[in-house]
Parts: sequence; C-alpha cells; structure tokens
Amino acid sequence: MAFRDYVSEAKALFDKLLPDNQITEIDYEGPTIVVYTKNIDLFSRRDDIARQIAQELRRRVMIRPDPSIMEPEKEAEETIRNIVPAEAGIQDIYFEPDTGEVIIEADEPSIITSRSSDVISRIKEKTKWSPRVVRAPPMYSRTVKEVREFLREVKAERKKFLHDLGLKLNQPTMPGETWVRITALGGHREVGRSATLVSTNNSKILVDCGMLNTNEIDEQPWAGAPYLYVPEVQPFSSLDAVVLTHAHLDHSGLLPILFKYGYDGPVYMTAPTRDLAALLQQDYIKVAHAEGHKAPYESKHIREMLKHTIVLKYNETTDITRDVRLTFYNAGHILGSASVHLHIGEGLYNVVLSGDVKFERTWLFNPANNRFPRVETFMTESTYAGRDDYQHSRQEASNTLIDIINRTFDRGGSVLIPVFAVGRSQEVMLVLEDAMRNGKIKNAPVYLDGMIMEATAIHAAYPEYLNKTLRESIMVKKENPFLSPIFKRVETKEQREDICDSDENQIVLATSGMMNGGPVMEYFKAWVDDSRHTLVFVGYQAEGTLGRKIQRGATEVTLTEGGKQIKLPVRMAVETADGFSGHSDKRQLLAYIATMQPKPHRILVNHGDGEKTVEFAKLIKSRFGIEAVALRNLETIRLY
Amino acid sequence: MAFRDYVSEAKALFDKLLPDNQITEIDYEGPTIVVYTKNIDLFSRRDDIARQIAQELRRRVMIRPDPSIMEPEKEAEETIRNIVPAEAGIQDIYFEPDTGEVIIEADEPSIITSRSSDVISRIKEKTKWSPRVVRAPPMYSRTVKEVREFLREVKAERKKFLHDLGLKLNQPTMPGETWVRITALGGHREVGRSATLVSTNNSKILVDCGMLNTNEIDEQPWAGAPYLYVPEVQPFSSLDAVVLTHAHLDHSGLLPILFKYGYDGPVYMTAPTRDLAALLQQDYIKVAHAEGHKAPYESKHIREMLKHTIVLKYNETTDITRDVRLTFYNAGHILGSASVHLHIGEGLYNVVLSGDVKFERTWLFNPANNRFPRVETFMTESTYAGRDDYQHSRQEASNTLIDIINRTFDRGGSVLIPVFAVGRSQEVMLVLEDAMRNGKIKNAPVYLDGMIMEATAIHAAYPEYLNKTLRESIMVKKENPFLSPIFKRVETKEQREDICDSDENQIVLATSGMMNGGPVMEYFKAWVDDSRHTLVFVGYQAEGTLGRKIQRGATEVTLTEGGKQIKLPVRMAVETADGFSGHSDKRQLLAYIATMQPKPHRILVNHGDGEKTVEFAKLIKSRFGIEAVALRNLETIRLY
Ligand SMILES: [Zn+2]
Ligand SMILES: [Zn+2]
Ligand SMILES: [Zn+2]
Ligand SMILES: [Zn+2]
Ligand SMILES: [Zn+2]
Repeated sequence: MAFRDYVSEAKALFDKLLPDNQITEIDYEGPTIVVYTKNIDLFSRRDDIARQIAQELRRRVMIRPDPSIMEPEKEAEETIRNIVPAEAGIQDIYFEPDTGEVIIEADEPSIITSRSSDVISRIKEKTKWSPRVVRAPPMYSRTVKEVREFLREVKAERKKFLHDLGLKLNQPTMPGETWVRITALGGHREVGRSATLVSTNNSKILVDCGMLNTNEIDEQPWAGAPYLYVPEVQPFSSLDAVVLTHAHLDHSGLLPILFKYGYDGPVYMTAPTRDLAALLQQDYIKVAHAEGHKAPYESKHIREMLKHTIVLKYNETTDITRDVRLTFYNAGHILGSASVHLHIGEGLYNVVLSGDVKFERTWLFNPANNRFPRVETFMTESTYAGRDDYQHSRQEASNTLIDIINRTFDRGGSVLIPVFAVGRSQEVMLVLEDAMRNGKIKNAPVYLDGMIMEATAIHAAYPEYLNKTLRESIMVKKENPFLSPIFKRVETKEQREDICDSDENQIVLATSGMMNGGPVMEYFKAWVDDSRHTLVFVGYQAEGTLGRKIQRGATEVTLTEGGKQIKLPVRMAVETADGFSGHSDKRQLLAYIATMQPKPHRILVNHGDGEKTVEFAKLIKSRFGIEAVALRNLETIRLY
Repeated sequence: MAFRDYVSEAKALFDKLLPDNQITEIDYEGPTIVVYTKNIDLFSRRDDIARQIAQELRRRVMIRPDPSIMEPEKEAEETIRNIVPAEAGIQDIYFEPDTGEVIIEADEPSIITSRSSDVISRIKEKTKWSPRVVRAPPMYSRTVKEVREFLREVKAERKKFLHDLGLKLNQPTMPGETWVRITALGGHREVGRSATLVSTNNSKILVDCGMLNTNEIDEQPWAGAPYLYVPEVQPFSSLDAVVLTHAHLDHSGLLPILFKYGYDGPVYMTAPTRDLAALLQQDYIKVAHAEGHKAPYESKHIREMLKHTIVLKYNETTDITRDVRLTFYNAGHILGSASVHLHIGEGLYNVVLSGDVKFERTWLFNPANNRFPRVETFMTESTYAGRDDYQHSRQEASNTLIDIINRTFDRGGSVLIPVFAVGRSQEVMLVLEDAMRNGKIKNAPVYLDGMIMEATAIHAAYPEYLNKTLRESIMVKKENPFLSPIFKRVETKEQREDICDSDENQIVLATSGMMNGGPVMEYFKAWVDDSRHTLVFVGYQAEGTLGRKIQRGATEVTLTEGGKQIKLPVRMAVETADGFSGHSDKRQLLAYIATMQPKPHRILVNHGDGEKTVEFAKLIKSRFGIEAVALRNLETIRLY
C-alpha cells in the first residue's frame, strides 16, 4: 500500500469545491488535516465545508484563518476591551489560534451577547478573531491557568509533535493476519495500578497507567506499579498511544514515568482529566517528598505528559493509530471520567473499557453512558461487585453522615473524613453545605486540606461536564455551594496544628482517601486516642491500606514517623457512611450490563478484589449468558 | 546480590581437597565449570572428584586433561591403529577433546575390549587419551559425519560462546516479584508451527519454533510461521534460551530464522534431534528451491543453529538460565524426541511440555516417560484427542497395510505411501521387511525417496535411543532390517521417471508426509488417474494440506505446476492404514494423564485441531478434576 498524501488530496478537493480558496498552508496535526486560508468567506463557512471535505477524504479537517489576516493577540485584546461595555465585567481574554477563536470570560456574558448583533460583529470585523463569550468561572483554579500557560509556551514543540504524529497516522497498515489482544498489566483481580494494553497487528495502545498506594510499599516496592517492564510494553517507545480514563492516581499516577523512560507519543484524555491528573500527580510528588520518600518521577515528566496530551470531548471520534479510532463516553465517576471505545480496523472489532463507572445520577454528574455504536468485548470494573456490595442511596448516605456528625458534635468532638481530592470531596461538600444551610447540622467550620479546594475549582472551570442542576447553581455566584463561607482552606502547618489543638466542633476533609499518607495522617495522629472524635469513611478502602485496616476494626495501628515505628491505639470512633461511592454498586453494575446496547459478546472483569472479580464474572455468565472472565495481571487474551 | 565467582571458588575447593592438583585452567563452559589438569591421577579419578566439588559448588563440574600432556590427535590415531589388532575392523577413530576421550568405532569391539587389560591400557598409557570402543554404526550417515566435522571446525567459536554463556548463567537473579507465564505463539488450537514461550521475571525460553506447511501458504504467507513478531519474543536477542522437543519441521522448521534475525544464544536438544533437524531443515530448503519458492533461511543459518546447540541426554538436568533448569525425558514419538521439564526458581514452580508424545511401545521406541520429580503445569499435545480418535493397534495397522498392498498388487498396481522422512518411514520399512521376509507380500522393490534412507542411518547412529529389540537387531549387520535388499534409494530424476513409468508392482515411500510438496508429488501426478494404483496414508494429515483433502475424499485436486494451475481427477485408490501414528491416540493420552506422577495442578492442551483441543480440555477437567484449558495462539496465561 502506498503512503496516502492527504495534503495533496485535500488541496485538490478544495480547488474543485472553491477555486478562490486562498489557502496558504495545509498540514497534518495529529489525526487532523489543518487548512489555513485568507478567504474570510471560506473561514466563516468553515464548519460546513470542513465536514464536506472530511467526508470525501475520510479524515478530520479543520479550517483556520491564516495568521497574517488576524490582528495580533495583544492589539486584539485592546480592541475587545474597548468595544465591550464595562458592566459586562470582563475577567479574562485569551486566544486560541488553533480555532481562530478569542474567549472572553465575563461576569455577565448576556450583556455582550444580548447586543450581539453589534458588539460581536464589531469584534469580528476589527480583529478577524471569532469571539466566544463565556461566564467567568466562579472560582479561580491555579491549575487550569498554569496548564493553559504551559501549553502556550510549548506551542512550537507541540506543533511539530502533532505534525509528526499526523504523518505516522497516515502510514499504511501492515499487511498480514489481523488480531486484537488485551494484556492485563495492572488492576486486574485487584484495585489499584490500573494498566491494560490493547494491541493489534498494527498498534499498541496502553489504557491507564496507575499506581497502587499500599502501606506495604516499602517492603515490596515493585507492587506499587503495573507490570511495565514486560516485553509487551518495552521499550515504551514501541507504544503508539496512551489513553487515560480519568485522573485518579490508581489510573494516572505513573503515567509520567512513561515519558521519563522513553515514551514520546500522544496521550488522549478529556480536558478536565488533564488538569486534574496534573494536579494530583504534582501533589503526589509533594506528599512523597514531605514523607521522605522519593517519587518515581519529577514535575518535568508531568509537563512532558501535558505537552503530549491531546484532549477529546465525550462522543468525539478520533483516529489514534493507523487502525484504531477512539471515542470517549461519560463514565459518571469523577469530573471528566470516560469510558473508552476503541473501534479497530474497518469494522473489524470494537472494545469498550469502562474505566471506573457510576451508573447512577449523582450530585455531580449524569449517569454513565452504556450505549455504543458497536461492542464485541466490554471490560468492566467491579469494585463493589461482591456478594453483599449493595450501597445505600445518595439520600441515605447523607442522612447517615449528618447523624454521625451530630452525635460527634454532641459529645464535643470533631469529625475527620479521609477523602480523595477529586470526586468524593465535592459530594461531601455539597451535602454539608446543604445540611448546614437547612439547619440539619449546627454551623461549624469545614476545613479542606490537601488540594480539595483546587480540585473543586477545576470542576467550576468545566461546567459542561457537570449535571444540569449543579452546572446552573455553580455558575451563579451567590448560589454556588462551593463558595459557602463554611469551607476553609488549610494551607499551612500552623493552621493544621491550630485545628488539631482546638476544642471546638470541626469537620475536616483531608487527603489521602485511603489514609496511606497525606495531610489526613496529621489529624488522625492528633485525634486517634480521643474517643470524642470520629473518623468517617465515605469511599472505597483498598486491600493493604491503613484505611482498610481501621475500617475493619483494628484497635491499634503502627505508623512510621521519622524512620521510627510508632504504635497508636485507636480510641476515636470509626464509622462508615456508605452511598457516597463514585463506583457503581453491584445492582448498578448489573443494571448497566442489562440495559447495555448493544450486548457485548465477551465481558472482562477487572478493578475489584481478587476473588470478587472471578465471582462477578461467573454471575455475569449465568445471569446474561455472556462469556465473562477475570484476567490475572500478566495474562493476555486474544479477542479476534 | 553479588556476581558469584565460581572459578575462584572451584580453585579453592580443589586446593583444599588435593593440594597437588596441577590445575592449568578453570573456565565456564555454558552451565559447566571446566577444569584442566596435568595431574593424571586427578584425571583418572575425575568422575568422583567432579561430583564432590559439584556438590559443594552447586554447579556441574567437568575435569579434563590439559591438552599439553596428550599426544596430538594425528599421532594418537596412528598409535591406536598400530596397537589395535586388524581383525577388530576399525571403521573410524575420532577425538573428543572436551572429555579427553577417543572414540574407536570397530566392527568387532569385543576383540579390543576382551583383551582390554592390554590394548586399552596401552592406548591410555601411550596417548593419554581415554579410549571408548563402540560398534561401528551399520549404516553410513552423511549428516552425522558432516555435523561432527562442522562442530570440530567451529570449535574455537563454540568455546567462546560457551564461556560467555557460562558468565551469563552465573549472573545473580533480579530481585522483585517472581512470576511464571506461558505465551502461545503457534501450534495452539492447531497442528503445526509449534512455538511456546515460557517466561519468568528472569528468563525468556522459547520451546520449539516450527512451521505450518499448508497448501494455502501462497495466499497467506504469514500463516506458515508462529507469531514471532510480537513483542514477547522481539528482539530475538532478548531470548535467553531455545529448547527443541524433536526434529519434525512443525517444531524445528523455523528455528534457523531465529539466528537469521539476531538470536545468538543456546539451543538445547538431544544429539539425534540435532542431526535429524539439520537434515530436515536442509531438505526443506532444497525442496522449496526445487518448487520455485524461496525458503525463509539459508544453510548458513542452520549452521549457526548447530554452532549454538547444546546437546543433553534424557534425564540429565542442566541450568539453562539463571532461574530455570531443564531436563529432557523420552517422549516415544520419534528418534530423540523429548518432553521438556522446566524447574523454575529454587523449588518455585515446575512445568512439563510434553512435545509430541507416544504413550505406547512402538517398533522403534520405548513409551513416553510420564513420571517427573515435580509438575505443577503440564502441557500436552492432542493430535488424536478427538471424540472418535481411537487408533488401531500396531498389529492391526500392519495387517491393514499388507492387505492393501496385496489387493493393489493383484490388480497390477503400485502403492504410494506419503511419509515424513523421520518416524513413520522407519516403522513402515520394518513392517514391509518383515512381511516380505515371511511371505505375506510377494517380493517387490520398496523405493525410498526424499531423505528416508539418510534419516534411517541416523537412527542407526544413536542405538541408545531405540528400544532394546530394535537396538540389538540393528547392530548385527545381517539381521539389520533396514539393510534388506528390498529397499532402494531414489536419488535421480531419471530413477524417479523409470519408477513412474514401470508396469511392475512397486512400493514407494516418499516425502512429504502430508503431500504439501516434496518428491511424493511426482509419483502422485504420474499415478493419480490410474485406478490400479493405491495411495495409502499412514500418518496424520493436518487441516489445510493436500493430503487431508484427498483423504477426506476429494475427487479432483488442483496443483500448481510451473506457475500454472492444473486440475487432476483422483482415480487411484485412496486408503488409510491407521495405527502407525507416532502420536498417542485418545486412549493413550488419557492413560498418560491417569498414570502420571505426580498429578499436575493444571493442564494446557495444544497441538490439536481447533475445537478438539477445547473438548479435550473439558474431558480432562471432568475426568480428572484438573483445571485444563486450550490457549489460543497469542494468549498468555500466568502460572505463578
Ligand atoms: Zn477512580
Ligand atoms: Zn480506580
Ligand atoms: Zn512430531
Ligand atoms: Zn508435531
Ligand atoms: Zn554466536
């Protein structure tokens, strides 16, 4: 097969369709053919024309204005500030040269858009940029800002990377027998260090690259990582693409080491996953250093990841290798979490990897999508797939939590809630804000320690990923529950010590969620021997974590502090408020499969405790008559 | 862990045990520590002392005389010819400097050994070589001679290779989690292109590297080879060891391409397997060229294989990687065929790969061994494991064949028997010789075309691998059935044409056994439209071969000749004489497992037609309660 020259083909198509196209450049940008034009008319009809050309070419096409006809960014910003009325309250203006858009963040976007016929058209005419007016995010996220700035800095490098990737994607597929395999590299028959390789005769795609944060990590350092040293993924430069389902560290935590050890290809994820992952990875390095560990990678490797990240929206299909197309679908689990649909070959085979999945509408998100164009093999998590893993409803969960807090406050104690920064934190915040506003709990400070506030701000930056109710309330400042004065960010050691020493009723949400490190440990150590206080678990506690031990009733725990072992008797109350989980419970997992369209031919069960995954596979087989197995890590199954 | 210095350790042990050891050199030679000494006394007690040192060292030790004290080979040969009486009938003298032995092949070895106190001791005294007197093989094998000469030529290279291998074997094992995996690369759920990877956290061992000779090879060239381009075995230089179960091309056929594409490590097999494999591979190249195909490797790659071959006897245990020990056991299938026992780690795990296996005493061999020191996972072939795969007894098989021949002769026809050069040929020859000698068939020439005679001669060179009855009769020239005058070697095109045109009763044994090429095709084309002749199948016909099609009753076949397709109606009689198989039938496979010691925990079924392997796995599970699966090619299972 010949190497297809999409550039020439595209040019010919444009010339035929629109002889006066004034095209100045056509280039590959990853999977997309990017066309630059000086023809304003062509540019204004770009969506229609691009669709038409793309159909003929069978490649995504994007039409951009030639930079020479645009007002330079600095001058354009000036122009816009002069045109827009002051009462619109411009918060930020930034340019996206890739689309020719200028984003105007304003407190009152309607003031600009209601008189749009005038303001918008004047901006367009003067600057040649297309204005997109959005409500200014109600919370400031340092992460969102920094990621955006970093990507602007490395724009030239990214352009080259995307160009080279485009060339690679256009190579012809290899002749020969076609096959599809899945190799379990981590997170199979266990929770943590998720990593799954999907390979074909043409492609190697790694889905997730997480870490397992156990407290046994010091004795068995290798147990924290997926099996990344096996020949299937070595050298990392042999991988064609990496796909990230969501930002939790058990999925994203070791992604930067791919870049440390030679990977140089694309990483596909949603935009919020990118920002959340960068935040959590950065925090992981910080916590590791604070605890005297050495993190297996540095900040520069996170930046390498960002540089190679290609963000996709839900339901948007993209060629990611010569023979595989990727589509993300909402997984309902955390902000930006996605199920991965891989379409292999020309109609040859379809695999869906659910990622972590919540098949229920939560306070934050819509339920996971379970309808796909085609699915032959479906891989599902099974965190709560055990015999008795029925979770309480969201309402019961919040009642339980309120009750626990009230009892603790009554006896003069405080409440410590270990949480992941992302997901559970925001749900618990919503419950607490609602309860205090409605007098179900007396007003008390809710301290947020360890990236929780920053993670919450990232939610506010991506309202389109939230469910409708929350999206609407969050965008109105005075109704935004996250901005309630009950929430207080903990930022210094002194603040933390004051909270620990205080005799007031307090609530502390602190990371990490499974108590294998992080600021939560400071509060725990301070309060563990005082029976007035309560430790409340709201999320999944994995095997091998301190959280699991305590939840199971340990009356004494051993911690390492400054290299020394200290023994602590557990005297504070320990409770669990279940129903907050971001994972589907057994009923929801079964409902997902029962209503899934189309029915898969084979189901692989992962992301669950050892035997639980095997049992759930048997249940699926008997309930639905679908072949189901739970792979062991290091096993490979052939799908086609 | 430190790199262990066995050389210094060995030296210290010798010095302690025998201060006057006169050791001149200690070196690694593969898994063995080789010690050279000038002390004749130490050398003569070498077996005892080596055992003692080996026990302390936990490494195999071999003591050799220092070359400087030995008479040079040429002079020593002269000396020996002078000492040995002429009536002993010396046929050959050759030296094995590795062991300090001189092998004297004589027609009447007893003449030398009966007066041994004199002749033997005089040779020893004069030459310092240790004489080993053996009966001269009754047949001349060009292959055995050429392999022996080639190995002498590349002695220096081999010494370096073995030295480097020794160093590698002494490296400490990697720390970290230990695991054992099996990857199916070919010959799983099919017969042909056998290749299985056994890997641990320290080793990658490829067992077999065969080819699939189908007639569809031209349309799907990749289908003939195992999946050797997958990352698990790429680059080939990442493999630590290759093990060959037996010489059949479906196991050995593509082994030389490992060396063509970068493998440079050891290949373990028995001595007869080495010679037979070289013969069959060389013949494969020749046949491919004759048919206008290009073989995927050349003679020089076979020589590379020979250069890197380490031969092991049955029941002899050898370290082949840092964490794996190999022992071969008799598999009863063809000359030198072995079951592979891998002992992994220090008592961690044991895997047995049966190879092709015959669990019945045949005219040639003892039944396969099914007792092992330990076995957790057992991989078995299942060629005849289907529902109705009961084979006739050896006696019934020969009666059927005799009957077919007599009926054919009666109607004035000839008999064509497609055979593999190795295994079935020799059994059929024994039956024919016996039948003609006893008047059950009238005397008629039996033509052997395509390496059959040469393969038979290799059997005669390794009598210790044959069963006792045959071993004894073969070593007496006048009783040797293979030397019967009924057998005639076909060596030229003219001879072949004469046979094809003759109107006499004749029997032709010709390769290949499944009619996918080779000289058998010439006879077939000449006789196919004549109903007096008979085509008799005596061996397994794999899916996709011409043999299978005809056996199943095809009334017309299409062949390619000089690039053109020719259609031939099948008018000659087609019969099958079953019971000659070198494979266990269903009953024998089940008996093997039933009496196996110890019982394995898991059984993998391979080397059988698609669904048959899956059914047989189910049967094993229900019959013996042992977990059993049939992997698909490209799948990996974790054993530990
Ligand atoms: Zn998650
Ligand atoms: Zn997870
Ligand atoms: Zn065989
Ligand atoms: Zn075979
Ligand atoms: Zn070499």
